[in-house]
Amino acid sequence: MQHVEALWADFSRPISNAEDYIASLRGRPMTVYFMGERVPEPADHPVIRPSINAMAETYRLASERPELASVRTEIGGCQTNRFLHVPTGPDQLVAKHEMQRELGRRTGTCFQRCVGLDAIGACHSVTFDMDAERGTDYHQRFLAFLKRAQNANIVIGGAMTDPKGDRSKAPHQQSDLDLFLRVVRRDDKGIYVSGAKLHQTGAVNSHWLIFMPTMRMTEADRDWSVVGAVRVDAPGLTYVVGRQTNDTRIMDGGALDAGNAQFAGQEALIVFDNVFVPHEHVFMDGEWQYAATLVERFTTYHRSSYVCKTGLGDVLIGAAAEAASHNGVEGVSHIKDKLVEMTHLNETIYSSCMAAAYRSKPMASGAYLNDEMLSNVAKHNVTRFPFEIARLAQDIAGGLVVTMPSEKDLQNNEIGPLVRKFLQGRDGVDTVDRLRVLRLIENMTIGRNAVGYLTESLHGAGSPQAQRIQIARGMKIEDKKARARALAGSSAPKR
Amino acid sequence: MQHVEALWADFSRPISNAEDYIASLRGRPMTVYFMGERVPEPADHPVIRPSINAMAETYRLASERPELASVRTEIGGCQTNRFLHVPTGPDQLVAKHEMQRELGRRTGTCFQRCVGLDAIGACHSVTFDMDAERGTDYHQRFLAFLKRAQNANIVIGGAMTDPKGDRSKAPHQQSDLDLFLRVVRRDDKGIYVSGAKLHQTGAVNSHWLIFMPTMRMTEADRDWSVVGAVRVDAPGLTYVVGRQTNDTRIMDGGALDAGNAQFAGQEALIVFDNVFVPHEHVFMDGEWQYAATLVERFTTYHRSSYVCKTGLGDVLIGAAAEAASHNGVEGVSHIKDKLVEMTHLNETIYSSCMAAAYRSKPMASGAYLNDEMLSNVAKHNVTRFPFEIARLAQDIAGGLVVTMPSEKDLQNNEIGPLVRKFLQGRDGVDTVDRLRVLRLIENMTIGRNAVGYLTESLHGAGSPQAQRIQIARGMKIEDKKARARALAGSSAPKR
Amino acid sequence: MQHVEALWADFSRPISNAEDYIASLRGRPMTVYFMGERVPEPADHPVIRPSINAMAETYRLASERPELASVRTEIGGCQTNRFLHVPTGPDQLVAKHEMQRELGRRTGTCFQRCVGLDAIGACHSVTFDMDAERGTDYHQRFLAFLKRAQNANIVIGGAMTDPKGDRSKAPHQQSDLDLFLRVVRRDDKGIYVSGAKLHQTGAVNSHWLIFMPTMRMTEADRDWSVVGAVRVDAPGLTYVVGRQTNDTRIMDGGALDAGNAQFAGQEALIVFDNVFVPHEHVFMDGEWQYAATLVERFTTYHRSSYVCKTGLGDVLIGAAAEAASHNGVEGVSHIKDKLVEMTHLNETIYSSCMAAAYRSKPMASGAYLNDEMLSNVAKHNVTRFPFEIARLAQDIAGGLVVTMPSEKDLQNNEIGPLVRKFLQGRDGVDTVDRLRVLRLIENMTIGRNAVGYLTESLHGAGSPQAQRIQIARGMKIEDKKARARALAGSSAPKR
Amino acid sequence: MQHVEALWADFSRPISNAEDYIASLRGRPMTVYFMGERVPEPADHPVIRPSINAMAETYRLASERPELASVRTEIGGCQTNRFLHVPTGPDQLVAKHEMQRELGRRTGTCFQRCVGLDAIGACHSVTFDMDAERGTDYHQRFLAFLKRAQNANIVIGGAMTDPKGDRSKAPHQQSDLDLFLRVVRRDDKGIYVSGAKLHQTGAVNSHWLIFMPTMRMTEADRDWSVVGAVRVDAPGLTYVVGRQTNDTRIMDGGALDAGNAQFAGQEALIVFDNVFVPHEHVFMDGEWQYAATLVERFTTYHRSSYVCKTGLGDVLIGAAAEAASHNGVEGVSHIKDKLVEMTHLNETIYSSCMAAAYRSKPMASGAYLNDEMLSNVAKHNVTRFPFEIARLAQDIAGGLVVTMPSEKDLQNNEIGPLVRKFLQGRDGVDTVDRLRVLRLIENMTIGRNAVGYLTESLHGAGSPQAQRIQIARGMKIEDKKARARALAGSSAPKR
Repeated sequence: MQHVEALWADFSRPISNAEDYIASLRGRPMTVYFMGERVPEPADHPVIRPSINAMAETYRLASERPELASVRTEIGGCQTNRFLHVPTGPDQLVAKHEMQRELGRRTGTCFQRCVGLDAIGACHSVTFDMDAERGTDYHQRFLAFLKRAQNANIVIGGAMTDPKGDRSKAPHQQSDLDLFLRVVRRDDKGIYVSGAKLHQTGAVNSHWLIFMPTMRMTEADRDWSVVGAVRVDAPGLTYVVGRQTNDTRIMDGGALDAGNAQFAGQEALIVFDNVFVPHEHVFMDGEWQYAATLVERFTTYHRSSYVCKTGLGDVLIGAAAEAASHNGVEGVSHIKDKLVEMTHLNETIYSSCMAAAYRSKPMASGAYLNDEMLSNVAKHNVTRFPFEIARLAQDIAGGLVVTMPSEKDLQNNEIGPLVRKFLQGRDGVDTVDRLRVLRLIENMTIGRNAVGYLTESLHGAGSPQAQRIQIARGMKIEDKKARARALAGSSAPKR
Repeated sequence: MQHVEALWADFSRPISNAEDYIASLRGRPMTVYFMGERVPEPADHPVIRPSINAMAETYRLASERPELASVRTEIGGCQTNRFLHVPTGPDQLVAKHEMQRELGRRTGTCFQRCVGLDAIGACHSVTFDMDAERGTDYHQRFLAFLKRAQNANIVIGGAMTDPKGDRSKAPHQQSDLDLFLRVVRRDDKGIYVSGAKLHQTGAVNSHWLIFMPTMRMTEADRDWSVVGAVRVDAPGLTYVVGRQTNDTRIMDGGALDAGNAQFAGQEALIVFDNVFVPHEHVFMDGEWQYAATLVERFTTYHRSSYVCKTGLGDVLIGAAAEAASHNGVEGVSHIKDKLVEMTHLNETIYSSCMAAAYRSKPMASGAYLNDEMLSNVAKHNVTRFPFEIARLAQDIAGGLVVTMPSEKDLQNNEIGPLVRKFLQGRDGVDTVDRLRVLRLIENMTIGRNAVGYLTESLHGAGSPQAQRIQIARGMKIEDKKARARALAGSSAPKR
Repeated sequence: MQHVEALWADFSRPISNAEDYIASLRGRPMTVYFMGERVPEPADHPVIRPSINAMAETYRLASERPELASVRTEIGGCQTNRFLHVPTGPDQLVAKHEMQRELGRRTGTCFQRCVGLDAIGACHSVTFDMDAERGTDYHQRFLAFLKRAQNANIVIGGAMTDPKGDRSKAPHQQSDLDLFLRVVRRDDKGIYVSGAKLHQTGAVNSHWLIFMPTMRMTEADRDWSVVGAVRVDAPGLTYVVGRQTNDTRIMDGGALDAGNAQFAGQEALIVFDNVFVPHEHVFMDGEWQYAATLVERFTTYHRSSYVCKTGLGDVLIGAAAEAASHNGVEGVSHIKDKLVEMTHLNETIYSSCMAAAYRSKPMASGAYLNDEMLSNVAKHNVTRFPFEIARLAQDIAGGLVVTMPSEKDLQNNEIGPLVRKFLQGRDGVDTVDRLRVLRLIENMTIGRNAVGYLTESLHGAGSPQAQRIQIARGMKIEDKKARARALAGSSAPKR
Repeated sequence: MQHVEALWADFSRPISNAEDYIASLRGRPMTVYFMGERVPEPADHPVIRPSINAMAETYRLASERPELASVRTEIGGCQTNRFLHVPTGPDQLVAKHEMQRELGRRTGTCFQRCVGLDAIGACHSVTFDMDAERGTDYHQRFLAFLKRAQNANIVIGGAMTDPKGDRSKAPHQQSDLDLFLRVVRRDDKGIYVSGAKLHQTGAVNSHWLIFMPTMRMTEADRDWSVVGAVRVDAPGLTYVVGRQTNDTRIMDGGALDAGNAQFAGQEALIVFDNVFVPHEHVFMDGEWQYAATLVERFTTYHRSSYVCKTGLGDVLIGAAAEAASHNGVEGVSHIKDKLVEMTHLNETIYSSCMAAAYRSKPMASGAYLNDEMLSNVAKHNVTRFPFEIARLAQDIAGGLVVTMPSEKDLQNNEIGPLVRKFLQGRDGVDTVDRLRVLRLIENMTIGRNAVGYLTESLHGAGSPQAQRIQIARGMKIEDKKARARALAGSSAPKR
């Protein structure tokens, strides 16, 4: 327990606001790589910093609108950020989704805290169930962990997606047993885990990580059925920050070409090499029967969390309308019609997520879980509609989105004036403002934040087919067939 | 007031159940036509009867599941059918929508009571606002009317859509002034109205009708700005029941060819010829400024009421799965995938409607109104997805849906055995059951109830463009533009 | 051979025009049922007659525009209808498709001659290949048959779709061996076949039928691998005409309610009971290896033949525009936009079909076959776009499409004037003309000819999945992967 | 004329192959900027060079497959590259489109020569018409110019899109008269033009440019109604190469991160400052009536030229299939189904373009022009389907597309082995090959060549609304209405 105390020593004072959060990230002994180079201080790396800024907005929002982004928690006995809260009623899931949309609007990108939040929700109830059914004490461990986190008001990240190797094989069947994260050693103080987690959102910007399985396990996969929490700077952890579209634009000088210079997402490969986890921070070890439940609860929470994309949609719709205004065509009927279509699709996503929250149900632990069918439906719409919204945004914005000169051209004495002269819009519009808005549209549709708005919308919280499988499971087809027979006046087939 | 009492004399005893309801329709002195002939008793007309059966299910459900389809009302001081209830909280709108989906599942068609229900909701708050702002006493009149209706547990229909003539002209500009319903005379007892209402759902199956304007009015349209209630058998009313696809199949003998022999919808042209309405039943007379509000509130309620189509969707998905089972292909991957897609679309509609209910807000009168944006989004999805669901149902069912022999062929000694022999499905499936399910799919996708599932889904509660106009109004584009500017770092144009 | 001469005795004089064609149908000893009753003379049956009228238009077009719908044929040594012609160059397939679109425009329905035409095309080349490879004499038999048919200028129908029973079993595995058409006896004069063909287009309106297998056969399916030609009035044939949506409307009196009183499609169940086919009319008997080729060539021809639906699309787009004009809204931007979308989809279908014709290739027999990939792509678009075109047509037309009073109401002295008064459109529009156009839209989107425009577009020439299987076969995925590797700079995986 | 000879002095020897072409670009006195810096030698600039490589493939293809990419021309009296040829028959447009698809497959990007090619086609016929109708000698000038170009086998670029400024105003109404390119001076030797052209494809990689108006002109726009040809290194021309997504990745070192290191597109802003054009190279000067015709013919050619995107589609479909194979899931049904869908959409585009070529018609000059309706339909599909194909490619590829570590991480001794270990696919797949294919998918869907595959597909040759306007013009709605009336039995409205 002394060891555990030591692990928490750095977090004795709660993080109070966005600036405090950023300060808390400095000076940590982490092993972070980007583009083949060790990053001495991520908070100072120009490509990584925008992702930290986006995360910091979760604190800023809590300062500015505490009713939306913070909450009084019984577990911690304190006021804490909503991203650390276990929802105990539909209203709290509703508030969570409103917060997520608002953060999407504020950042225009992925603010990276939802994986950890939804991991907390899933672990809360699954540890409860394990204890109830198997006499373990995971739930108490988890509550103790969460209490500390809430009081410290830190960022908990989630680490889920294993590399998987040959997808037709179970973890224990892989030729390289590390292709799923696993327990490689146990001693009386704790366990040691090795393996990796792929494309982990906001990993470098977190304080602690909860790792958990990525799919259903079998009995032979006991050693891979493991959940626990580690400090992000635990010995044995290495981070490789992934490349994103246009990631280095921010290093070209100036802010214009980046489109959204302030905010971006982050996804990293995390390698675990014999990482020690004290028992106090182990929340599952071998209970393979609960892996599927944990994954399903996590994804049910997380698929609704994609409501955040409607916040990005708000920004993109606004940007398209602004671009149309710059061109003097905002009132043209086909432009208006496209803005309506974008809004319709965006609000359809929103309504599915919100309905999934309102229709949440309590689990044995007391935590509330979004309606599973509607959460899957919501996410499935997210795998489609942002692509059409982005297409319409580009349609309205015009080809200049991908042919614009650089900000450096504007600064050049020879050609700067020419670019300004020839790229002017209607009267009253500053040419550089026009370019800024077009660069934002580029950023969200074919630039850095398109990573989050489009590709991540496809694959985050499970790829489209994962939702279809869950929809198939939940669609109660036998009930529906019975309804049809009742009206057709037919009997059920013999077999 | 004596006159009013007389008007209500028939309704002294509350309708207690489905059979009682059907009995209540008999013997009324109504002027009803269908296919050029006066219908002496609609309840006995084979084409009209299925629509009465569908309406009767609203009573049957209240008997079988009172918690779902009935409610204790303060206005009436009694338990009454939920279709007569003014919602005073989100939970009541949620319950309403659950009831509507269930009735869709039970009937596979339009059960015709939602127009009246949503008219009640809209009149409640608009009369309240008029009284508060203009010192009229419409709200008390309306409450008195509604109290009687609730205690009698009758069916209130709504009558809204004027013929409109030249759509580029206001009511007072039409060459024929009757093309919008209007007050043609006033005396100290009441008013006299003339005109017509088109395609009125379940009109013949109602006991009373609330008539109301169909669109925004101007000052010159005072005489057309009229709301009131009349008995469906009031002197001066004539009904022409419209033709529906395959309407007369039910008269061919047997039930099979009809697909859904028991249930259907109904829409009629109602002609008003100098119909008297006592002051007690007049709820607006000349307050043209409130016409638009009334229409908007009505459509906001009513667009979410299209959640009923998800009940029809349940039936159609079930029928498609059953047909696939009959063919022995239920487990084939493309079949399963199509069932998932149908379910996904169906639940997307559901989630939008439900979100609009959960996010309802109170009006001054205390009544709750669905969220306007989400209600429009919900209905807009209804104008699209049932068409795709129907297409997929036909895809799964196969071409036999439109080439099947008649039930009479089955009964023929010569060819009946041949038809049975050659239309058999997999072992264990009764051939006639197979045909019944295919006829149900025909009924819902290209037969009588496709009228309700498809065309009405397009135009009921306003055509697609009507929703787009409302979405445009509610989309807060200036806010969205400001969000985009905040991220782009640009300033608003000078304008 | 004498027997064969006798079979052709009735066809000594070529059919010269549409009227002559209709006369040729009378007095034949056919066993036809509709709705449980024997039809003594199909040409006089009000429900069947419109389908005969549609077929007759193939003759009328040949009279009016001989360059389009007739052709000089080498096989017959005569001028004959293009529906009897084996295409020997891309230009002839192009002309065929132009003819099909024009007939779609003229009839607004399925004119029923394409199955026979495409059966002729497929049999021509497959009999040639069989003879070349196996020393049979089917091709000469077929040419002799076709020469007679061309000189007589008769209608050849095609009969393909077997009932199939349990779709997971081959013909010889079915518990009832008749579920695929088969040879039940052979003698020195010919063969005897039993079984049935489902939903056969225009069967009753044809003079002869070519029957053929519906799918790939195995060696054990030899007796089911049979192709031949029979007179439609051959002993042992029974026809059960299928029901269509609104089929009996034409019997209600008047023409208005039918929407398109003159033209309709026809599909029938044909039962074969020990039907004799002389050797001269047998074009395959046991060559199971060629069944798949025959089916593939037939469907390749036939999928492009669905270009006819663009003719129906022309009518429906026109009807929607006319309805909008009647309402006074033709110039409104969203109406115009919908007409453009309908046209875009319609012309996309057209372009795929035409490209498949222009890119046709010769086979060994000299006949040209449409490009297989593009023909499948064309038909696959036909399974989607007409549904959207129909939805948009209903959107433009308004709800009246499904709520209109009957023509009989117009004729009634009491309510006729009321209906006329209240259903008037803008000035200058005759109310009955307005109703006629709306009834046509009903007819094509949710009425009798929706059978052909929608459901048949899904399933005719193979259901959507059948096209997807062919597209998968033809998509040359290994070539595409090699192209990708060339640009990625990667090597092919080891296995 | 001496001056003209001097202008052509550098082009006395025809360019013989790809290498010769690249050599021909070196050492030209051009004023080219990229990212604020003067580019001394574009052929050596790492960001520009891939676009030169793509252009060079048009020569390589002519060397490797002369029948496809070269042609004997009567105008030049020589064999020349097909990109310099005026099509005089449908077969030549068909061959052109086959060439374009093949180049799309070879480069996976925009190879930039189609604008010039289609400008040649449009100028040929419009100059002919002007001469015939107005007695000018533009056509002879143009033929002389083209003869030289064909004999030199050079690259002609096209320059069309004016900056436009306030889109609600004509050229002569703009506050800055240079916002459309115009004649600022005329003397006896020629004309002087000023203004700019936006996002000009392959401008820097061309030898000569044809400039032309971008829209319909009025009489007051005479000075803006100008067409001519200039050397790309003519005095007064300045080029600003636009930024593209991920453009600088190629400068990070290594080829992997670029995805397609060899090939890319190019678009530039071209500023014209008092550029002299001798009369011999002026092909329109003031004939404002012909501006619209020129634009329409150009776009009709050019919209079908977007068939090139089906070549990119081939690559992307192949890449997705390869990625699925790497993951071991190529045989999974939903994967196969998505590959089929991608192919179906890709071939639909192809068929529209090809049909537009086959149905081309001759103009007075003898040049053939694609069918206008089908060409617009083809391009309109291009504004939709590549976006869905790209979405499906990302769906199949998985999230790694946007989270992969950099090639530099692979090279790092510490983390390179970890990345290789954890990103391995199924057995037999080289991990780096796997990453290469994923980077190619990134490149085409959210990277550098997504610029060409997606955004340019929207806006090149006119934005979606431009096609809708042309479809509306060509859709013969009055004919369609007449067809509907013929079947409905209705008369045309009085007005």
